[in-house]
Amino acid sequence: MSFRFTTHHEAGRARTGTFVTPHGPIATPTFMAVGTLATVKALDPDDLRALGATMILGNAYHLHLRPGDALVREMGGLHRFMDWDGPILTDSGGFQVFSLEGLRTIDEGGVDFRSHIDGSKQRFTPESVMQIERNLGADVVMQFDHVAPGQSALDTSRDAMERSLRWLERCRVEHARLRRDDPDAPTPDQALFPIVQGGIHAELRQASCRGIRDGGDWIGYGIGGLSVGEAKPDMYAMLDVVDDALPHDRPRYLMGVGYPEDLVEAVRRGVDLFDCVAPTRMGRNGAALTRDGRINLRNARHRADPGPLDDACDCTTCRRFSRAYLRHLVTADEMLGLRLLSLHNVHFLVALMRDARAAVADGTFDGWSAAWLDRYLAGERARGSVARPVLPHSKK
Amino acid sequence: MSFRFTTHHEAGRARTGTFVTPHGPIATPTFMAVGTLATVKALDPDDLRALGATMILGNAYHLHLRPGDALVREMGGLHRFMDWDGPILTDSGGFQVFSLEGLRTIDEGGVDFRSHIDGSKQRFTPESVMQIERNLGADVVMQFDHVAPGQSALDTSRDAMERSLRWLERCRVEHARLRRDDPDAPTPDQALFPIVQGGIHAELRQASCRGIRDGGDWIGYGIGGLSVGEAKPDMYAMLDVVDDALPHDRPRYLMGVGYPEDLVEAVRRGVDLFDCVAPTRMGRNGAALTRDGRINLRNARHRADPGPLDDACDCTTCRRFSRAYLRHLVTADEMLGLRLLSLHNVHFLVALMRDARAAVADGTFDGWSAAWLDRYLAGERARGSVARPVLPHSKK
Repeated sequence: MSFRFTTHHEAGRARTGTFVTPHGPIATPTFMAVGTLATVKALDPDDLRALGATMILGNAYHLHLRPGDALVREMGGLHRFMDWDGPILTDSGGFQVFSLEGLRTIDEGGVDFRSHIDGSKQRFTPESVMQIERNLGADVVMQFDHVAPGQSALDTSRDAMERSLRWLERCRVEHARLRRDDPDAPTPDQALFPIVQGGIHAELRQASCRGIRDGGDWIGYGIGGLSVGEAKPDMYAMLDVVDDALPHDRPRYLMGVGYPEDLVEAVRRGVDLFDCVAPTRMGRNGAALTRDGRINLRNARHRADPGPLDDACDCTTCRRFSRAYLRHLVTADEMLGLRLLSLHNVHFLVALMRDARAAVADGTFDGWSAAWLDRYLAGERARGSVARPVLPHSKK
Repeated sequence: MSFRFTTHHEAGRARTGTFVTPHGPIATPTFMAVGTLATVKALDPDDLRALGATMILGNAYHLHLRPGDALVREMGGLHRFMDWDGPILTDSGGFQVFSLEGLRTIDEGGVDFRSHIDGSKQRFTPESVMQIERNLGADVVMQFDHVAPGQSALDTSRDAMERSLRWLERCRVEHARLRRDDPDAPTPDQALFPIVQGGIHAELRQASCRGIRDGGDWIGYGIGGLSVGEAKPDMYAMLDVVDDALPHDRPRYLMGVGYPEDLVEAVRRGVDLFDCVAPTRMGRNGAALTRDGRINLRNARHRADPGPLDDACDCTTCRRFSRAYLRHLVTADEMLGLRLLSLHNVHFLVALMRDARAAVADGTFDGWSAAWLDRYLAGERARGSVARPVLPHSKK
């Protein structure tokens, strides 16, 4: 068995741990950068290693359409294809397929949809997605799930949650069959994670957790369908519910959540793994994360600022470049600007989780997290940065 | 005196040398990557150092408009602003200003033009350009010259060449004044290079060289107005003329020339320094240089090719990534693809000049250059890659 999860320290429900995968160990809690199309946008694998990334993501939907999971497998699998020898997790594409409003029809067997690239007809089933993820060869593969819109009513959320449970069983059977019948896949020993659904309905989240646990003993657990438009208190409440309902000795992965304040709040609620396109997307939009909230480099007040984005940051962008230079690159639409900001933003979240681990380990987590949130949110309020995209991971 | 040029080995008119500048020595012949807007497009200074770049370019026209040379100076000069501690050369913007057909009027004093960014009225004179280049703080600054279109008739070429001589004298006086009166500039000791003009008219090129040498003893010499649409034999003929007419103990810089075959032919004719946007522009267009000519990664035949761009190349792109992966990135418009191709292409030219130096040094240059050209041009012919942009450095 290539997978193992060990917890080391606790602070309330927060904990530090080590999640061992076929491609190495991951210190948790951690933030995983999103490499939708076999590249974390604008960053090189060397950048990712240098900033301390351990596990990164790929996406089954996007990679199936381009360049094709069969080609990735022919090229030796995702690790070799993109030259990333650390752990990789692939999302199943459930979120993407269900986001194709008007381009897809759902039945119990699966989903018919049209490619967002060329309009070609496609069909995903729990079984076909397991084959795609087998071909890609990530360490952790997510189940194919039915994702309902964030603020769905009870009935809609229940239908999606219950279908996700039925599809989980089909994923489990097919995943086991592939492990047995296809031992030459790029990563023979993959872990299948179920995904907790249920919208913002506590009873559905509890039922989802029960159904998942009735279906097997899983290496880790995904928590889906959050940070998709619901209010933050609703998201945090769901995390409280799920924390109680999932086993404590397994890693929990909160999918698509990547705002700094949400990471800290979720670590407080026992979450171990995070991913989000926000840091790279913000970078491409000229925005940067700082301990005092987000800043936009297009703002004229950075024009002649010789200081770094964040004077406590040890990323290579902050060690080398001024806000004035970064603003120049961003306003001139230079690719280097987008890259340097993406690098800083991913580093910011990776380092935030590193600091959280240290605070849990040395017994200062409660004070650390409260002070961190106070400072960050005060900066956000001062700047009026209250807007957030409704679907932060919609294009993942 | 911070500048010194020493030649080491010769092979016919080709030679190796060391050009010492305030920011370090340059082994010649060498290719200089173009960082128009204080960034070599898509590349990080660390990328440039890793691939072996020594001297890079900035552009006075572009940096004056964005972010402004005064701001660059306020931020400590171009070296500090873009975190490049090696030698830098700035082009004067003559080429850019004269390319603004319909947006500029020329008089003996200078050029009135409108910014290509916001249409604002601007005026460049030899004196104002010397101040801009003083503020930017490059090691080598080019004179402000009058650049005529590539295939201009004799009279037009003569007028531009003669005006360039008169403007050179004004640049010389102002450059000397600034060295004396503005000792606190980012790079106190800058070298002013004149630019040989004269189109494809041998007698004008000779007159230009005579006029320049009458005007002073220069640290190095630029050769401008070539690779702007004229036939290659015409360009090579002009290099023969200029080689005879310039002092052999000073570096010669062939401006805006960056096709591999042109570099080899020009080294054969005594040229030491080159620059061109071609390698990064090609990279952004999905094209790559190889010893067998250019290839375009969008071509379907690279779809499942597990090999590198060039199996003899030791750049980090070729060491890590397959053509299949690069093709995937390029067809998906991923920034990493443009960066990896730009990195390879700049490395290709830097390494080509490294190999040329080695061949000159060990006495094999004639055979090496003939074999290199045979192989490269055979590949180009086989692929039908005969097209070349009319103005390879138009957007520098």
